[in-house]
Amino acid sequence: MRMLPGSAETPRRLAESLAHGTDPENIAGRVAHIQQWFTDFGRYSYTDVTRVPLSGLKGWHHDPATGDIRHDSGKFFTIEGLAAHLPGGPVPEWTQPIINQPEIGVLGLLVKETDGVLRALVQAKVEPGNRNGLQLSPTVQATRSNYTRVHRGRAVPYLEFFRDHRNHHVIADVRQSEQGAWFYRKRNRNMIVETTDDVELRDGFIWLTLGELYAMLAEEDRINMDLRSVLSCLPLSVPDLDTVLRSDGTGFRGALVRSCHPSARTRHSFGELLHWLTDVRTGTDGSTDRIPLNSVQGWRRTAETIAHESGQFFSVIGVEVTARGREVSHWTQPMLQPRSQGVIALLVARIDGVLHALMHARVEPGYLDVAELAPTVQCIPDSVAVLPAEARPPFLDTVLSAAPSRVRYNTVLSEEGGRFYQALSRYMIVETDAEETEEHPEFRWIAVHQLMELLRHSHYLNVQARSLVTCLHGLLSAPEPAVPSTAGVEGS
Amino acid sequence: MRMLPGSAETPRRLAESLAHGTDPENIAGRVAHIQQWFTDFGRYSYTDVTRVPLSGLKGWHHDPATGDIRHDSGKFFTIEGLAAHLPGGPVPEWTQPIINQPEIGVLGLLVKETDGVLRALVQAKVEPGNRNGLQLSPTVQATRSNYTRVHRGRAVPYLEFFRDHRNHHVIADVRQSEQGAWFYRKRNRNMIVETTDDVELRDGFIWLTLGELYAMLAEEDRINMDLRSVLSCLPLSVPDLDTVLRSDGTGFRGALVRSCHPSARTRHSFGELLHWLTDVRTGTDGSTDRIPLNSVQGWRRTAETIAHESGQFFSVIGVEVTARGREVSHWTQPMLQPRSQGVIALLVARIDGVLHALMHARVEPGYLDVAELAPTVQCIPDSVAVLPAEARPPFLDTVLSAAPSRVRYNTVLSEEGGRFYQALSRYMIVETDAEETEEHPEFRWIAVHQLMELLRHSHYLNVQARSLVTCLHGLLSAPEPAVPSTAGVEGS
Repeated sequence: MRMLPGSAETPRRLAESLAHGTDPENIAGRVAHIQQWFTDFGRYSYTDVTRVPLSGLKGWHHDPATGDIRHDSGKFFTIEGLAAHLPGGPVPEWTQPIINQPEIGVLGLLVKETDGVLRALVQAKVEPGNRNGLQLSPTVQATRSNYTRVHRGRAVPYLEFFRDHRNHHVIADVRQSEQGAWFYRKRNRNMIVETTDDVELRDGFIWLTLGELYAMLAEEDRINMDLRSVLSCLPLSVPDLDTVLRSDGTGFRGALVRSCHPSARTRHSFGELLHWLTDVRTGTDGSTDRIPLNSVQGWRRTAETIAHESGQFFSVIGVEVTARGREVSHWTQPMLQPRSQGVIALLVARIDGVLHALMHARVEPGYLDVAELAPTVQCIPDSVAVLPAEARPPFLDTVLSAAPSRVRYNTVLSEEGGRFYQALSRYMIVETDAEETEEHPEFRWIAVHQLMELLRHSHYLNVQARSLVTCLHGLLSAPEPAVPSTAGVEGS
Repeated sequence: MRMLPGSAETPRRLAESLAHGTDPENIAGRVAHIQQWFTDFGRYSYTDVTRVPLSGLKGWHHDPATGDIRHDSGKFFTIEGLAAHLPGGPVPEWTQPIINQPEIGVLGLLVKETDGVLRALVQAKVEPGNRNGLQLSPTVQATRSNYTRVHRGRAVPYLEFFRDHRNHHVIADVRQSEQGAWFYRKRNRNMIVETTDDVELRDGFIWLTLGELYAMLAEEDRINMDLRSVLSCLPLSVPDLDTVLRSDGTGFRGALVRSCHPSARTRHSFGELLHWLTDVRTGTDGSTDRIPLNSVQGWRRTAETIAHESGQFFSVIGVEVTARGREVSHWTQPMLQPRSQGVIALLVARIDGVLHALMHARVEPGYLDVAELAPTVQCIPDSVAVLPAEARPPFLDTVLSAAPSRVRYNTVLSEEGGRFYQALSRYMIVETDAEETEEHPEFRWIAVHQLMELLRHSHYLNVQARSLVTCLHGLLSAPEPAVPSTAGVEGS
């Protein structure tokens, strides 16, 4: 094993990988090349997904006492019921189906330096919920059932780097939550591991620089949720990022670069943010109880699906999957299908020249610890319409009516395709003026380096916020917005 | 309201309060004065505690279905059962009674500058479990039932500073766990708030500098657990601590001062520590289930008590309390009484001139998140004797046989006197040689400033470890050990 540079060098080396070859002509060619590789690989790797009735799932059964939907092995996950109590909230109590998957899976990204640049090993992976078939995923994306081989599939490639990591350099290793509206206390272990070992390149895998990876974020539905999540844990908080990125420090990108600097001036100190979040978490007088699935109220269960009476929110559906290029070639499973497309948006603003994001301390029933930091807006607009007016997210209209010149990122991305069927959301980053934006009690302006510090720990940033941190990082190497963004701040 | 100095000044001002008037002659006089104040106040404030049968508790009942012991109001706490599964552990499964108190209480310490020095407002408080009657407690120590007045007692004095803290400076605000062997997921909110308001001094309260407070730590059983816990959250990670404390940088105290410096060299990077703890937490294949109290196995329940068949661990007992100087003057309640005195000890060592503590990633069934950092040794030696040999704590013998010249702190302190009846432990800090101490997979050498960084967040340091962090801070202003401590390291 060759020696790795010291871990103090890691943030700078990551930044160099982010900046590598990202001038517009070069990166366009690389993106075209990766797309072609996708198309080629997609000929040999695909999924056929057919909707089937919930009552017809093979290998799954309905628990006669509770109505819960369980796998016959007792493994994987179950669909159960949840009763949420949130006194004082716009919807003070409700019940719903929820996925219970207590095992902690691994989302692992393998990193290696070749030709003087760090590259990440990513996979073109098919998941039954993907609208487009293949998406780029981490090197390893394994539930515990996966890697203990419950379903007798093939071994998970490259898992050894994440199971036996003593001879490698662990860049990040933190358990992070997943959708608290759909999962009961689900967490995955997000790991980034650097190796100097020789690594065999398998079919369907590709080494990409961070610059190339982040360029793919501009493509619709191309970087999957798990890869976005694990990328958000990269320690990209670098003092000399402006030098590495050759930023002149003006405009939107300059403010973003400064925001990644660990000592950038911030609206709130780190201690104030921790105090605020403690206050929200202890002030929330809510509770959740797991209940039998057949006790949920307001949901209609047929042989086909479980759906809310309003037609809104989500349904539990059954699918039959035939896959090639996955561990198992044929199976059926339940999935969650959201009613319609979501909006997941971050308002950002320059405060004293440092970009800040307006984060929401959001309560979701499936969180282990009451509330986590979410994007400014996170909702399914169609479903919001059936809720009380007070439940309308405060900044939804600001985001939906934003002038195009203020929109810094705008791409449809999907949630995890192993549990969620075509769960698409429009992910947006919208620049606004902090002084024109009221700071609600449950919202705070937070600099990027503060978010990065929080991301070293569990239970702070929810999965949607982690996606948008990755999108923000992606803008570090993107060209400066065509419209001078100061116009967006000072002008109309 | 006068302006407070910026919060960047807080650590230095805390350090000055720690150093203030701690020269040996002065501090001895102050300690004598505080002891006298205690004696005087104790004449007017006392508890009479009588053991009564569990079956005779007034206002409490045994749930007929589960056997759980509940308050008739449904508030306060319940005694329930817990089943713990820890495959691969020395005791792979067991059941036990446990206290369930889901509400998050407040442990609040009010701080104010007078005569140019920060002073903390502490209370001489009686608790039924105290062996010695009065102990020094935080300004506010209130369960949610307390401050919502479930038991119709008087209002909690000074609570307003912690409920409406917008006009004050919040120095620390973090929810921390309590005993995971006795409590099911209990957490309290540890708050330190600085005010410039005029504060009325009530009977039984006293303003003390941090130097005076820490000097009282050398007294047996004088600083209660809640005060030790909240003190551990003080941000005493100060670059120029050596100047403030007039330390010449040699010896034990010099190594301790350096260990508080935020950029002191450490055996493991902060990232490595987080990775290690994630690894322990995800690698632990355990689970806990709440069960009815009458389903616990191996425990004998009589009208009097619930006790383990071995006579070890702890018993659930009933007490009748008559108190003066507390919110309610007469009540009965169940309590936990440990079998015998515990040993809670931290091995510390100088590594490259920086003091490190050997922390244990310890699994306890009542933790919200699997494992927390505990002292090197935490056990009741008498109870260890009835467990399998593999369950004997690795460093217990090292601690029990330590040469007196290596013992830096050694005082009997007790756990919380509101739930635990005379739960005494010998708290020790013992200096050793890191190179002679094998680093087990579940133990790591950690510098004090790294512990302080972890203490800003929930679920990292357990309550026993927090007590010992406070004891370490107390040694910052204590005289250098009489025996040159290098002799302890290099000699016998």
